[in-house]
Amino acid sequence: MSNEQPPATMADVARAVGVSTGTVSRALRGLPGVSEAMRRRILRAAEGLDYVVSPGASGLATGRTGSVAVLVPHISRWFHARALAGAHHVLRNAGFEVVLYHVEGIAERREFFETLPVRRRVDGLVIIALSLSEKEIERLGGLGMPVVGASTDLGRHPSVGIDDPAGAAMAVRHLANLGHQRIGMIRATDEEGIHGGVSQRRLDGYLAAMAECGLPVQQDSIVSAPWGIDGGAQAMAQLLSLRTPPTAVFAEADDIAAGALRSLRRAAVDVPGQMSLIGFDDSPIADLLDLTTVAQSVYEQGLIAGRMLVEAVEQGTIAEPGQRLDTRLVLRGTTSAVRRPAL
Amino acid sequence: MSNEQPPATMADVARAVGVSTGTVSRALRGLPGVSEAMRRRILRAAEGLDYVVSPGASGLATGRTGSVAVLVPHISRWFHARALAGAHHVLRNAGFEVVLYHVEGIAERREFFETLPVRRRVDGLVIIALSLSEKEIERLGGLGMPVVGASTDLGRHPSVGIDDPAGAAMAVRHLANLGHQRIGMIRATDEEGIHGGVSQRRLDGYLAAMAECGLPVQQDSIVSAPWGIDGGAQAMAQLLSLRTPPTAVFAEADDIAAGALRSLRRAAVDVPGQMSLIGFDDSPIADLLDLTTVAQSVYEQGLIAGRMLVEAVEQGTIAEPGQRLDTRLVLRGTTSAVRRPAL
Repeated sequence: MSNEQPPATMADVARAVGVSTGTVSRALRGLPGVSEAMRRRILRAAEGLDYVVSPGASGLATGRTGSVAVLVPHISRWFHARALAGAHHVLRNAGFEVVLYHVEGIAERREFFETLPVRRRVDGLVIIALSLSEKEIERLGGLGMPVVGASTDLGRHPSVGIDDPAGAAMAVRHLANLGHQRIGMIRATDEEGIHGGVSQRRLDGYLAAMAECGLPVQQDSIVSAPWGIDGGAQAMAQLLSLRTPPTAVFAEADDIAAGALRSLRRAAVDVPGQMSLIGFDDSPIADLLDLTTVAQSVYEQGLIAGRMLVEAVEQGTIAEPGQRLDTRLVLRGTTSAVRRPAL
Repeated sequence: MSNEQPPATMADVARAVGVSTGTVSRALRGLPGVSEAMRRRILRAAEGLDYVVSPGASGLATGRTGSVAVLVPHISRWFHARALAGAHHVLRNAGFEVVLYHVEGIAERREFFETLPVRRRVDGLVIIALSLSEKEIERLGGLGMPVVGASTDLGRHPSVGIDDPAGAAMAVRHLANLGHQRIGMIRATDEEGIHGGVSQRRLDGYLAAMAECGLPVQQDSIVSAPWGIDGGAQAMAQLLSLRTPPTAVFAEADDIAAGALRSLRRAAVDVPGQMSLIGFDDSPIADLLDLTTVAQSVYEQGLIAGRMLVEAVEQGTIAEPGQRLDTRLVLRGTTSAVRRPAL
């Protein structure tokens, strides 16, 4: 360490600003009841005096660690990163350190749930975009801390997400309203078990809307491929090789629709003249590709999950423990009635 | 907390496995010298006994916190998320908790460098993709902990990155070799000061290669627009409205090239028949759009920065403190000689 003089105390900071040590403590921990202007004055004074809260000492005083953990499987995916950014924003503003657990792959995930490295090291946990097994949810119960899910169903634990079946049904009804009768679906296979719950719920919505519209479901028009652009391309190739291909396809995520669109371009299929395509998420790629899609508010889900966790840690209770945000249809250039001879 | 019995000690874990407390300590901290099989046995035993290292106690014993911080400006950008994933992987495997500081926006960044919230709370800091001012670099010196940059120039602090001028020059030489003489460049404006250093170095490479190839630089063919797809679209529109537009354009990032390509499509300019376009990064969007680009290894930069930080924290020194990774040209479908009448 570069500093050799005896460390300043909280009382030194309080004296310098002319407030109580209680106010200093609240300000430094980001707790409510201190104005933003005062908080900044106190931060500057603490900084000037080279005063730092000892994590150990603050833990002893409050029974808390001052840290929370966020578990996320794929930060390189737009959805995961956006939700993480939202949760981080709220948690930092509430004065918490945010400890990141990026469990990319099955081995890291297994280790996380076996060893629960967050135990007694943090005050709470946010889990983003991860479908959990019954056993994993049970393990969380033993943590002895609040756990909140974002785009993640955690059984009895609080969570925020969207109504996936309703979003998927909206996509299918849009295609049916345009006159499509042969509507296919591209799902993501899910070897890591990350996305399984969401995928199942979107399939449920697709099937419900097909039934509601009186349209027959062709089993071979529901295809699965690995998550991402290459997977989507491969799935669309499979649909294009059917005896009677669909005239419209619902892809359960924009990343998959992007690959499907690549296959359609390569096969010189006119979109939307011969084939309509709709995605899900409204990620930047959808805008780039002029893709019609079902939008959800991803950053917002992170924000709400973060707020729920702060409530749970600071007040021991959450006012609205099961929030479901609306989805909305974003019309762009990849859906229309069939205008040229179908494939 | 859910557990009321007296907490297990490290000695209890050591007894259960039949090893020394030193081995348990090393295993739990992820230090070298313990086999993976033994580490897992010890983790299971610790888990069975509900034993958790007290952060305070481990700090007292080793003089360390067991945590490191990663500072990143925009986790929703592919580059930032990939580098973060690489750094996280190494740091977690070395047994550290990874505390995330996402400084999105000028206010959060200013607060970070004013208050330095990581002081004495972590053992080291990785900074990803952030161009720092002299003053900010100076502030880091007072942290009293190792700091490592990834795609970030930190003055005397160690860092890993690429040779940006060489990468940019490679892009320009590729275009010149195809016979292009009017070669433009699209830069990102940088109000937040995140990307400024990188952008300047890529401009330097562009100018050097233009001079080397004996090509005149038209000042109005170097345009700037905000980072991202819309910015790139706007910049290309500006180039297309010049009296004599370039026949080839180097965009300093794929996200910008993607927008440029959108403008070219909307204006029905044949790519690459009438206009060649090359990006930088080789992000998934480049593959999707069949964009020729300059590839860099982003995850690798995160890995190396993480490794450097582990070395610095554990050994107090870094063997190779200034690593520069190679870039490589990825030929796809957006560059060729001019084959149709130029604009």
